Amino acid sequence: MRRALMLARYGRFTTHPNPNVGCVIVRSAEGRMEATESAWIDAIVGEGYHARAGEPHAEVHALRAAGEKVKGATAYVTLEPCSHFGRTPPCANALIEAGVSRVVVAMRDPFPEVAGQGIQRLKDAGIQVDVGLCEDEAYAVSRGFFTRVEKQRPLVLLKLATTLDGKIALANGESKWVTSPEARADVQLGRAEAGAILTGARTVLLDDPTLNVRPEQFPEGSVYGDFPVRQPVRVVLDARVEVPMSAKLLQDGAPVWLIRTQSSGQTLPDHVEEIVVQGDGYGRIDLHALMAELAQRQIHTVWVEAGARLAGALVQADLVDDLILYQAPKFFGPDGLNGMNLPTVSDMQAVVSWQIQGCTRVGPDIKLVLQHPKTAT
Amino acid sequence: MRRALMLARYGRFTTHPNPNVGCVIVRSAEGRMEATESAWIDAIVGEGYHARAGEPHAEVHALRAAGEKVKGATAYVTLEPCSHFGRTPPCANALIEAGVSRVVVAMRDPFPEVAGQGIQRLKDAGIQVDVGLCEDEAYAVSRGFFTRVEKQRPLVLLKLATTLDGKIALANGESKWVTSPEARADVQLGRAEAGAILTGARTVLLDDPTLNVRPEQFPEGSVYGDFPVRQPVRVVLDARVEVPMSAKLLQDGAPVWLIRTQSSGQTLPDHVEEIVVQGDGYGRIDLHALMAELAQRQIHTVWVEAGARLAGALVQADLVDDLILYQAPKFFGPDGLNGMNLPTVSDMQAVVSWQIQGCTRVGPDIKLVLQHPKTAT
Repeated sequence: MRRALMLARYGRFTTHPNPNVGCVIVRSAEGRMEATESAWIDAIVGEGYHARAGEPHAEVHALRAAGEKVKGATAYVTLEPCSHFGRTPPCANALIEAGVSRVVVAMRDPFPEVAGQGIQRLKDAGIQVDVGLCEDEAYAVSRGFFTRVEKQRPLVLLKLATTLDGKIALANGESKWVTSPEARADVQLGRAEAGAILTGARTVLLDDPTLNVRPEQFPEGSVYGDFPVRQPVRVVLDARVEVPMSAKLLQDGAPVWLIRTQSSGQTLPDHVEEIVVQGDGYGRIDLHALMAELAQRQIHTVWVEAGARLAGALVQADLVDDLILYQAPKFFGPDGLNGMNLPTVSDMQAVVSWQIQGCTRVGPDIKLVLQHPKTAT
Repeated sequence: MRRALMLARYGRFTTHPNPNVGCVIVRSAEGRMEATESAWIDAIVGEGYHARAGEPHAEVHALRAAGEKVKGATAYVTLEPCSHFGRTPPCANALIEAGVSRVVVAMRDPFPEVAGQGIQRLKDAGIQVDVGLCEDEAYAVSRGFFTRVEKQRPLVLLKLATTLDGKIALANGESKWVTSPEARADVQLGRAEAGAILTGARTVLLDDPTLNVRPEQFPEGSVYGDFPVRQPVRVVLDARVEVPMSAKLLQDGAPVWLIRTQSSGQTLPDHVEEIVVQGDGYGRIDLHALMAELAQRQIHTVWVEAGARLAGALVQADLVDDLILYQAPKFFGPDGLNGMNLPTVSDMQAVVSWQIQGCTRVGPDIKLVLQHPKTAT
């Protein structure tokens, strides 16, 4: 199952909007005794992962690779095999027809069109099914997909790059660069796994970023297979219709969604779409309504790179699941610009205590992965 | 040598003002073949560490333990054996008289009264001497001692406990507690290794801390031997003669030095001393003069727990070697109180890039050890 999970992760830049799934088929009869562990190791006869939406699922790849050896074999799958006709036929049927004798499933698929029916179909065909091996890891592999199914909103990851005193720029606005090239390369991976990259019109006006994915900047070994890395949709909150058509992120032809509270009547290029979302009564976008709209549009992970206002507003709205904080070992001092606007707190009990999920060094910087206590529990 | 270094660290709470030293004596003839590594392991026949100033040095403990087996043996010592009569006779002589045939020394002692003379004396007696094994680690074990010898000022460690946005209290001043009990227990170890704990009168007035060492709060296994943990001197910058005699840190009978720019004429308890240090011309203590004075008084490591002004002033004066930063995974927001007063910077090149020496989790918090680039190079 650990190998199946590793394979599942191979698809993390390309399977969107589908979940990441890996499958390994083993036969005990062709296994071997492992000298150092005194354990019997089953032989892998086929394996695969889901690489791209619309293309075969992990199980199909693994069954094809196993060929005739699949009869009586055991299949390890990181997610319940599908039972419905989507863009491909149901995998539960394929496993039955191939003649496997046992299927080990890491987790039940919460997606309403599956939700236990795949497991039931296998059992009805007389196949032994075991569910729950490495369930937490399997959830983590496609966390955005499951969050969307369960909460009808995407998983929201807020990226911040600050100093050790929480600043993103000097008092004069200079911000190139707070963190290192290594940290910025790591950010590229974060963007690439997301369905959408969210920012505000103010950031577009001030910084004019491209917010695209540049696989040539990835650390070596990050991309698998021959599939081009998918460009996430850039989503820009533009309630006041301020984003100029000359903005860099509108020039590369990859999709951009401009979020507004009413139709602007603007003529837009084909790759740019205006989406109307309800306002919050103060001239801004309602962030909960925005997230519901993005979920409707099959976005399951939103990577946020925004200014202090939007970042603070998302945290205040309890919409941030993970804070991905890159810290440069520097101090800009009290006059530097803050990374997040937050209101004054007068009670220590009211302060959110994030949970540290990861703490690693990236070049000369630190990367913290902080989970919101509501998400973590 | 690694074992000798480990032994040396056993003395880190008690040897002040002496350096930490460990010694291991081995005999090849009584060694054994190590099955898994196919390597010959010499037998340890004696070992020891320097536990307390005025008591025997590491070499003497190891020689006593080895007894007759010392003849022809090899001694591994983390610091050049002393050659002068201090509170104990010279260790170089002891090693010669005991009949060791080889001495491996991690580093030459920069202390002017030794400075190569111990090594020379051993060589003159026909003993093979090798210098430089694990030199960096040996330096680190007694870094404060060596800093004082080399720079005529103590090693300065600035401890800060902040949020991820660099705050030490809410806007209303509430600060209990920013970090966790685990982080505060770790701070106890930092204090205990120091010769002095430095703070400002303002912190005494606002927080009334004890700033003492409470070994009962140490993590288990932190203390070795039967020696009581030494209480560092509390040093309070009190240029305006504001520290009240009722302050908690004056009540426990352990030494306190009040630093002033002129004699106050106050009558002070026996354990409290007034030390006059030159001012900086603006009514404050000259921090460089202060450090020179502390070095004169055999303080080799200063642990700073201070408010934003003194912390910022020390960093501005380039007097901080290491910043020990405990970060709670929280944000107090822009209105919170800053941990360090620093001036406005208008040029990214002028910002100090600290070097991360350590990045660990302490309970729910993060501990960063940041070295000043001048100290690190």
